[in-house]
Amino acid sequence: MSDIGEDIRNRPRTDETVHDIYTEDGAVRPRFLAMVGAAIADRDVLFLRQHVAKLHESELGDLLESILPDQRQALVRLLGKDFDLTALTEVDEAIRLEIVDQMPNEQIAAAIGELDSDDAVYILEDLDHEDREEILAKLPFTERVRLRRALDYPESSAGRRMQTEFVAVPPFWTVGQTIDYMREDEELPESFTQIFVIDPTFKLLGVVDLDKILRTQRLVKIETIARETNHPIPADMDQEEAAQLFEQYDLLSAAVVDDNGRLVGVLTIDDVVDVIQEEAEEDFMRMSGVGDEELSDSVVDTSRSRVPWLLVNLLTAFMSASVISLFEATIEQVVALAILMPIVAGMGGNAGSQTMTVTVRALATRNLDIHNAWRVARREVGVGLINGAVIGTLVGTVAGIWFGDPHIGGLIATAMVINMFAAAMAGIMIPLLLDRAGADPAVSSAVFVTAITDTTGFFSFLGLATWWFAIS
Amino acid sequence: MSDIGEDIRNRPRTDETVHDIYTEDGAVRPRFLAMVGAAIADRDVLFLRQHVAKLHESELGDLLESILPDQRQALVRLLGKDFDLTALTEVDEAIRLEIVDQMPNEQIAAAIGELDSDDAVYILEDLDHEDREEILAKLPFTERVRLRRALDYPESSAGRRMQTEFVAVPPFWTVGQTIDYMREDEELPESFTQIFVIDPTFKLLGVVDLDKILRTQRLVKIETIARETNHPIPADMDQEEAAQLFEQYDLLSAAVVDDNGRLVGVLTIDDVVDVIQEEAEEDFMRMSGVGDEELSDSVVDTSRSRVPWLLVNLLTAFMSASVISLFEATIEQVVALAILMPIVAGMGGNAGSQTMTVTVRALATRNLDIHNAWRVARREVGVGLINGAVIGTLVGTVAGIWFGDPHIGGLIATAMVINMFAAAMAGIMIPLLLDRAGADPAVSSAVFVTAITDTTGFFSFLGLATWWFAIS
Repeated sequence: MSDIGEDIRNRPRTDETVHDIYTEDGAVRPRFLAMVGAAIADRDVLFLRQHVAKLHESELGDLLESILPDQRQALVRLLGKDFDLTALTEVDEAIRLEIVDQMPNEQIAAAIGELDSDDAVYILEDLDHEDREEILAKLPFTERVRLRRALDYPESSAGRRMQTEFVAVPPFWTVGQTIDYMREDEELPESFTQIFVIDPTFKLLGVVDLDKILRTQRLVKIETIARETNHPIPADMDQEEAAQLFEQYDLLSAAVVDDNGRLVGVLTIDDVVDVIQEEAEEDFMRMSGVGDEELSDSVVDTSRSRVPWLLVNLLTAFMSASVISLFEATIEQVVALAILMPIVAGMGGNAGSQTMTVTVRALATRNLDIHNAWRVARREVGVGLINGAVIGTLVGTVAGIWFGDPHIGGLIATAMVINMFAAAMAGIMIPLLLDRAGADPAVSSAVFVTAITDTTGFFSFLGLATWWFAIS
Repeated sequence: MSDIGEDIRNRPRTDETVHDIYTEDGAVRPRFLAMVGAAIADRDVLFLRQHVAKLHESELGDLLESILPDQRQALVRLLGKDFDLTALTEVDEAIRLEIVDQMPNEQIAAAIGELDSDDAVYILEDLDHEDREEILAKLPFTERVRLRRALDYPESSAGRRMQTEFVAVPPFWTVGQTIDYMREDEELPESFTQIFVIDPTFKLLGVVDLDKILRTQRLVKIETIARETNHPIPADMDQEEAAQLFEQYDLLSAAVVDDNGRLVGVLTIDDVVDVIQEEAEEDFMRMSGVGDEELSDSVVDTSRSRVPWLLVNLLTAFMSASVISLFEATIEQVVALAILMPIVAGMGGNAGSQTMTVTVRALATRNLDIHNAWRVARREVGVGLINGAVIGTLVGTVAGIWFGDPHIGGLIATAMVINMFAAAMAGIMIPLLLDRAGADPAVSSAVFVTAITDTTGFFSFLGLATWWFAIS
């Protein structure tokens, strides 16, 4: 069953073996990269089979990302059928497509047949329709039907991420029968942590964790130790929602069911961990107007994906510029205002983005809703007023001394309190309103919040100054 | 073994049962809140035992977060020993402390004894030294030793997050012996997915997944089906690093070992998922100068935690103000410059924060290192120049028309290209340098990047204008 074993007691155990191919920073070791590069150049297939083909899929993925495009192509070609296609699930989309594009469809089809269905779908879903159909056509019937069914579910749904291999038994089997079945069946999934209980129509009845089976006497019937699956996941549920269920209920795997409650697959925690990472990353990136980009994207693609956000910001920048232009005459008289006004606007922006970040995150983790929004809003406004007073006093003092004019100090301090208040209101209300309107608050909040803090900052400071100099 | 079973086939299965206490948004249903509130007011212990005590720990946690502080105290008191302390691992730290503070130490000690060791440590580690010692002193000897050992490991280490309950067997046992042992031993952990192979000194020899045991004949020796644990986790490893191993190698659980390679506990994926979430959240929050704050923190605490970041930003704001003051004379002559200058600075800031976000994220996920930094930097500079040209042309045209002066348009366009270039350089170099210097790039990058884009923006635009009006 295993070619290790027997002498595991005598094997030396060092920490280094873990990170063999990695430096302390988690990068692939330059020395290893050089050796692989040399082996590729020398077409040293033996070395590659021994040292590259045996890497863990994620290590092979990191290696692929660390070498040059030419080397990638050559490596995949040299390894041939020893190349583990699963590694492609661990690399950037651009690199995945680059590698798949140059592989003959026959080779892909042969390799896809070896994969778990979820990995196969992950690779197939990015291909264009024609290639995908050609590859599917080359697969055995059952395999093809399975993959096609998964591919029919919407993108980013649980159905796309599920594995269609699972162990399911009827409720009247005994623990002994079940264990014997698992000892004999060759078609079991590579690894699993629970088995499902189904009726003859594949309707899901319950679930049994493996440790429960191991702790139970052979004669006990499966149905007596099965527990209800409180969390069967509809195949068309969004993967993010499914991930939240995993997180909330500490699930290791969950049954995926179709509209009729029939078991169609199993979603496992390792895929869910990837989803959680992706979603966190997305929120993080979107907040700064960066989309789905990857480090391997080209200059032009990257530029194009970032320009729209800049354009929206440009619009708001012109908006605040036009606010300033209202007070042209005042600025001409007191240039100190031009010097100080970016401080009011900028500090409002900083405070607003603090509040906004908290709000966006709380919305994403579902800690914020209409029921506690009022309480949170009051807190943020309180914080805004306190911080406005603190920063305002400081700025006012410094500005007053700098320009030798206490009035200027008083004006900027007052404007600062006003803008910090506006920042707090905007930071909480804008993400909430966007969320209510069905928009993603992570994407668009920043633009609106900055627009408000900029215009309020300029308007309050220059407006106050104009009024003050007019009456004094 | 289970009070369900037998009739799982006949039980109605609806999706609503899953989210019983939740609305579609994932908030706790107002109606449920009202019912619980009424039951607390009426001291209706029966209702609470039936409908609250039986909730999943995470549901109970959400409920605790959704009711008023007074209700929380009353609920915990009314439920008495039916209150599942595990729910405290699911609530904000402030609420956890609030609840624990009012529970008598005897009650906590009794409840702690029921918990898995990782949950117990999670609650104990936040308590002050005195309370913690008092509670530990009330626990049985073995329990106390276990918890104290876990608490001795550094904060946020694998040792703090591990569970000290695990199944371990000697290598010479057969599969049959192992299964029989699991059927009889009452002290097994609540759930587990693998068992460990150890020598008499608890030195870790290998690991066997449960599905492997179920698939193997009873007479086979454990050592022949054990596999080497490639990823034993040192107890003092940082939890984030441990989480990365889980992610990379798709682990469900991993052995935690002490300095001598002895098995001391097991780290499970559900705890790791929490770590991944926390770390992603931290990066996200830190980037906007928000620390470990929680929605339940008080106004004063929140204000205090956010002021330092605002002060640092204030310093840089004064820096850029002083850059503007260099060009006071020019602004006095051409007020249009004062109106337009925030556009140059602001757009640079936006572009810089796009680049910076990508860099910070790539560093966090270890996709960026000194080997590909050069390539990524070139790409970012390319993107900066292209976007600078696009935005610059647009701004130049609009500004030229607005002020009826093509020179102003040319000046702002040039300044924009310069600042976008500076933004790209700053966005990539600053996080990289901070990372090299051992600082957390997520925390401090934004301040430096904004400082650079603001000063470069003002200096390039006003400087160019001063030079231009001097020579023309």
